[in-house]
Formats: sequence, structure tokens, C-alpha cells
Amino acid sequence: MSDIEQLVTRYLKTWNETDAERRRAEIDAVWSDDALYTDPLAVAEGRDAIDATIGAVQSQFPGLVFRLAGPVDAHHEQARFQWELGPAGGEALVVGFDVAVFADGRVRRVYGFLDKVPG
Amino acid sequence: MSDIEQLVTRYLKTWNETDAERRRAEIDAVWSDDALYTDPLAVAEGRDAIDATIGAVQSQFPGLVFRLAGPVDAHHEQARFQWELGPAGGEALVVGFDVAVFADGRVRRVYGFLDKVPG
Repeated sequence: MSDIEQLVTRYLKTWNETDAERRRAEIDAVWSDDALYTDPLAVAEGRDAIDATIGAVQSQFPGLVFRLAGPVDAHHEQARFQWELGPAGGEALVVGFDVAVFADGRVRRVYGFLDKVPG
Repeated sequence: MSDIEQLVTRYLKTWNETDAERRRAEIDAVWSDDALYTDPLAVAEGRDAIDATIGAVQSQFPGLVFRLAGPVDAHHEQARFQWELGPAGGEALVVGFDVAVFADGRVRRVYGFLDKVPG
């Protein structure tokens, strides 16, 4: 697994970390100082806002897990990948797509889009 | 057509503009001052480099045209869209995918990926 695949995997894991202290430590490790996350439903500038956004999503979808839905396509300092959110081993309720931009081994930007939303 | 769809269409048209003066004027109008374009084969920082990159691609694929290959999915200041490069009315030789990030009505970043390359 490439460094970027490892980082994307670790990034997705932070979305599943429900222990507040561990989640924040992971966010600090994974995201750059000037982090920016934008998807259709949320704009989060900085680690505090990203942490709060992840916490809010976990409250909205308790017990569901984020996972990669396909390969990570990476070059230079950027990657695209599809992810899904669903019960462990069950069908996804939400499918999304992110382009992540990296700097110095951390995630600096995530530009998120949605492919499937609860209907 | 939304403002962002119009801007994406105009952005793609610059890739087809082979008159050097008109192309540069369009690049100046479409791209922000701190423009950055990155795809698997090219990193172009600033309008001079973007202009040179487009010129090089036109030399590599003379007579072919860029066109949108599907809808533009946009929210906030970002959009994703698939494009293709091929003869007018003919099958695409290259299919790509861009995430574009906007600021003040111009394109500021393009994060490009490739879905099909000449085999």
C-alpha cells in the first residue's frame, strides 16, 4: 500500500473513531494546520471544525461505518476515491466521492461530492 | 446553465482555442491570478505555464477537441466533471476527470485525473 493509500485509509478511519479524545488526536495527526473540508452539506475550516463535523455526522448515523468503496487513484499530491457509509457488512446508505490534496504527508484539502444519499 | 457550468464550459473551450492570442486572453479571463493545474502528466503553476501546457497538448493531439462527457456536479466553490478528447463526432481517445475549485468567478485550481488513455 502506498503512503497516500495509507493516509487515505487513516483519514477514513477518523470518521469512524467515536472516542472524542482519540478522534481529535488522529485529526491532528492526519490533517495539516490549514485544513479545509468541503462537501455538499458542510464546510469545515480548521481541525476544530472538522472534528465537530465528524462528530455531527456520527450522531446522525450512529453505528454505521465509513469504508473505501474502490481503489485510491493518486498522483503528485492528490488522490480521488469513492467511499461508502453503511452498517458493517451491509448495503451502503450513503456513497460519496472525495478528492484529497496533500502537503508534507498530511491531508490539506478534501473536496467532497455525493453519489448516493438516503432517499 | 448555472454560472459554474458556464465557467466550466468556457474553461474547456480554452483547451480547443488554437489561436495563441485568443487562447491567452481567455486563460487570463478564466483563471485566477494564483492558478494551479495538476493532472497525472503535467503540473502547471500560473497562467504562463497553463498556456504552455495547453499548447503542448494541442500539438500532441492536433485536430481533436475537448468536450464535456457528462453533467457538471457543483456545490459551494467546487465542481466535478468528466471530459473527453476526440475527433469531432467520433469516439474519444482520452477521457479525463477534473475537480475544479473557484474563487471570485474564476478557476483557481484544477485537480485532474485520467479515466482512459490511448492504449
